[in-house]
Amino acid sequence: MAEINHKFVLASRPVGMARRGNWNYTESPVAAPADGEFLVKIIYISLDPAMRGWMNDGRSYIPPVAIGEVMRALALGRVVESKNPKFAVGDIVTGAFGVQEYAISNGMMVNKVPPIGIPLPVFLGTLGMTGMTAYFGLLEVGKPKAGDTVVVSGAAGATGGVVGQIAKIKGCRTVGIAGGPAKCEYIVKELGYDVAIDYKSEDLRKALGAACPKGIDVFFDNVGGEILDAALGQLAMRARVVICGAISQYNNTTPVKGPANYLSLLVNRASMTGMIVFDWAERYGEAAKEMAGWVAQGKLHARCDVHEGLHNYPEVFEKLFRGENNGKLMLKVCDEK
Amino acid sequence: MAEINHKFVLASRPVGMARRGNWNYTESPVAAPADGEFLVKIIYISLDPAMRGWMNDGRSYIPPVAIGEVMRALALGRVVESKNPKFAVGDIVTGAFGVQEYAISNGMMVNKVPPIGIPLPVFLGTLGMTGMTAYFGLLEVGKPKAGDTVVVSGAAGATGGVVGQIAKIKGCRTVGIAGGPAKCEYIVKELGYDVAIDYKSEDLRKALGAACPKGIDVFFDNVGGEILDAALGQLAMRARVVICGAISQYNNTTPVKGPANYLSLLVNRASMTGMIVFDWAERYGEAAKEMAGWVAQGKLHARCDVHEGLHNYPEVFEKLFRGENNGKLMLKVCDEK
Repeated sequence: MAEINHKFVLASRPVGMARRGNWNYTESPVAAPADGEFLVKIIYISLDPAMRGWMNDGRSYIPPVAIGEVMRALALGRVVESKNPKFAVGDIVTGAFGVQEYAISNGMMVNKVPPIGIPLPVFLGTLGMTGMTAYFGLLEVGKPKAGDTVVVSGAAGATGGVVGQIAKIKGCRTVGIAGGPAKCEYIVKELGYDVAIDYKSEDLRKALGAACPKGIDVFFDNVGGEILDAALGQLAMRARVVICGAISQYNNTTPVKGPANYLSLLVNRASMTGMIVFDWAERYGEAAKEMAGWVAQGKLHARCDVHEGLHNYPEVFEKLFRGENNGKLMLKVCDEK
Repeated sequence: MAEINHKFVLASRPVGMARRGNWNYTESPVAAPADGEFLVKIIYISLDPAMRGWMNDGRSYIPPVAIGEVMRALALGRVVESKNPKFAVGDIVTGAFGVQEYAISNGMMVNKVPPIGIPLPVFLGTLGMTGMTAYFGLLEVGKPKAGDTVVVSGAAGATGGVVGQIAKIKGCRTVGIAGGPAKCEYIVKELGYDVAIDYKSEDLRKALGAACPKGIDVFFDNVGGEILDAALGQLAMRARVVICGAISQYNNTTPVKGPANYLSLLVNRASMTGMIVFDWAERYGEAAKEMAGWVAQGKLHARCDVHEGLHNYPEVFEKLFRGENNGKLMLKVCDEK
């Protein structure tokens, strides 16, 4: 009897927060790989804010997930059957395998995880797309110089946590914005941020002014909304604002709040630049190698927030938008073995 | 008996549109230049949107005009008395001489107008700060390549008119946004824009989509507000948005309208960069020389909208914000002789 593949399939496009009702939890027999393909048994599924955007119709940097299609997600799994000579049974691989238990792949955009003693979830976080986003967004778009003041929103989040640590490695002063005392303690004590600002309890503008007496040289924004506006109000001359995401705006049912302080770009001859990590795909290997070195040297800490059970996916995913995750959020779908 | 200098002195900081009551129209005896100084009899005063910003208190790229101080303005005049060996009586000069009939200067940031047969008002427009703004903002910040689609807001304005013409000289396709049929005709017939969009009568988003089937590569924004948002919605990949000004927002009594479509920067890996022309002061000479060549060759047309009479300054200045000027707005204060 064929094994069963459980999966979440997009049922409807959400208005506001994505809820369980926006997907169908269904099953089908596990497919057999055709020539050139292989079958992956998924172990960890990465839950990322960007997934909310993929559920919307309309033009974006990637086509939307179609109604009836398996929900798109990055994941890590083990090759359990292969008709592709480049991938052997037993290989651990990452790719856009979706919110399901098994995936068929032809190897496109799939990476092998090297056996270097780093825990597997880290390859979906610090050494995965999250880490690549932090690495290229900060270094290639933000272009920090030693001594610069780098401010990061969503600083306790998966991307923001890595950004702050890379900025420290590069000799910058780092200020992280996060929600609540636990996250603020985490980013200072575990991630090495110089200053944490709790946007839930502090006057953000005043706190940023106090934390950045010479202004902000690089602002790495994962959040948007009021936080982006507050940071724009404190830019140093020729500051670089990296627009990586806007989690505060993804579930809006009203229009996105544009940054009213955008004319600070003019006053300060500053720039605001959007980035999508896919543009650096050719350099992922180089970045992953450097970052794996930092992880091995204990310079780059990676906290993963792993939840169990594929069937819990919708509720675990919601945690991202309530800021309830502690580090890189992911689902564990089966044992590593 | 000493000659009298009439002048407009800042009386109060405006809320919303600047009105006559925000200045005092006063007079004082014409001062005598001290050693190293010279006296300028002002002929033309440049009226620019940026002047509205200089009337506001608070941190900006330049200190605000103080209450009781002569209103800051760029102007062109003739040296009528000199104790500075670098400036001789009869020299025609431009500088920040203010809204008055006579100014004392020590020569700092003052430029001599060469006798090359170009009408004097052009040195406050196309060959003045307006033209420098267009030149460096487009070429150095916008970085257009031949074949790019360049969209300009305020395209019939002093800066926008020059931007479109330089973009054509550089081999770009140009789309100008202006208000009303007369301005739209002007920018196509006199300034050579490929397409004009009348934001007052057309659906701006649809018209931009139709005019830019491959998207906008460079958006040069003088206006802000809804026009900036519409343009952000049509960016091509790796587009460059130049924030030169935001005339739609300068008289706001409510907060500035931030660009709700700013996440288009992310989707399109685009950038939005503010510019202040002063940063290129060392290269004004080089730019003026190249632009004077274009003027002489008939490639760069310069329409000046000259009004007579210093005492009319407040009402003429208001025309800028109602879009009633036709080309570079200026006041003529005395005859050229």
